Amino acid sequence: MDTETLTAAIAAFVQKSLGRWRAQRSVHHLAFGHFEQVESELEIAPVAVDAPAVVTLCEAWGVTPEMAIAPFAMKWEGRSDWDGGQEVLAGECLLVPVPLQGKLLRDRGYAETVPAAGILWFGADGTFVLTTPYERAAAEERIWFVTDDVRYRVSSICTSSGKGVVTASFSTEIRRLD
Amino acid sequence: MDTETLTAAIAAFVQKSLGRWRAQRSVHHLAFGHFEQVESELEIAPVAVDAPAVVTLCEAWGVTPEMAIAPFAMKWEGRSDWDGGQEVLAGECLLVPVPLQGKLLRDRGYAETVPAAGILWFGADGTFVLTTPYERAAAEERIWFVTDDVRYRVSSICTSSGKGVVTASFSTEIRRLD
Repeated sequence: MDTETLTAAIAAFVQKSLGRWRAQRSVHHLAFGHFEQVESELEIAPVAVDAPAVVTLCEAWGVTPEMAIAPFAMKWEGRSDWDGGQEVLAGECLLVPVPLQGKLLRDRGYAETVPAAGILWFGADGTFVLTTPYERAAAEERIWFVTDDVRYRVSSICTSSGKGVVTASFSTEIRRLD
Repeated sequence: MDTETLTAAIAAFVQKSLGRWRAQRSVHHLAFGHFEQVESELEIAPVAVDAPAVVTLCEAWGVTPEMAIAPFAMKWEGRSDWDGGQEVLAGECLLVPVPLQGKLLRDRGYAETVPAAGILWFGADGTFVLTTPYERAAAEERIWFVTDDVRYRVSSICTSSGKGVVTASFSTEIRRLD
């Protein structure tokens, strides 16, 4: 996929993703066959390309802000049934796509809470695929729209060798229209 | 994808799928935000192209058995936490790929327990995609290997118009080596 096509695909994908979503997420901890259930609310909002946080993140990765397109912020708040309790999870992160490098920069990662840069691409059927190497793990996320208002997200956390899957999760996200 | 490429892709996919698998499956009932958990054992075994059951299934769909390749049988036995109980689920079905038509015939369906024929294809990244229209619903399954011994299966049951998702499920399947 050339840079122009990738730029258009990213812009369209981010545009479709904007809004508020109600998410149902199942996490499979494969080694011990455990199921975890998470219910959450997501909010995905556009961020200006010249916002200070975007400029800072680009500079941290040696990228000029002109190379970034369609930055967005993702906020989540949810509850997990992990450990029998009702753990409250909440967070926010900034995501900055850089099509020329095929990268997605984020100010905090998914597998580890440190800044991360993932490699992004789109499958022939429009599936968004993001792979992110971390120091002790590698994460892969696949996101696709089933309808305009329903999207699926499958995430894996693998050992850094890529040979074993530690955790797999599936999130069904329904657009909130209220 | 031409018939020859599809034939090779199907043969390779079935070959990789043979064996016994331990599956962890989460079902999301979207309308009412319910989570269902299923633990099961799967067994996928090859079936001879000239086996009587294969010939009968082909004939029922007006296909000559010579058009079939790599038929296989899938057996499952599992337990669901649905309704708080420990419902036991068990079943078996025969699946017959017909590359020339891009179809997968099965003697019992997933969304409805009647014979069904789905349209199958492979994504550029090797994901197996099967869509099956039923009388009152449509099902889509996507299966891909994360490693040789771990495969994911995402299934959706949609209203027949394709506009709404009723049920989404995610299964992580680990090869049993014992």
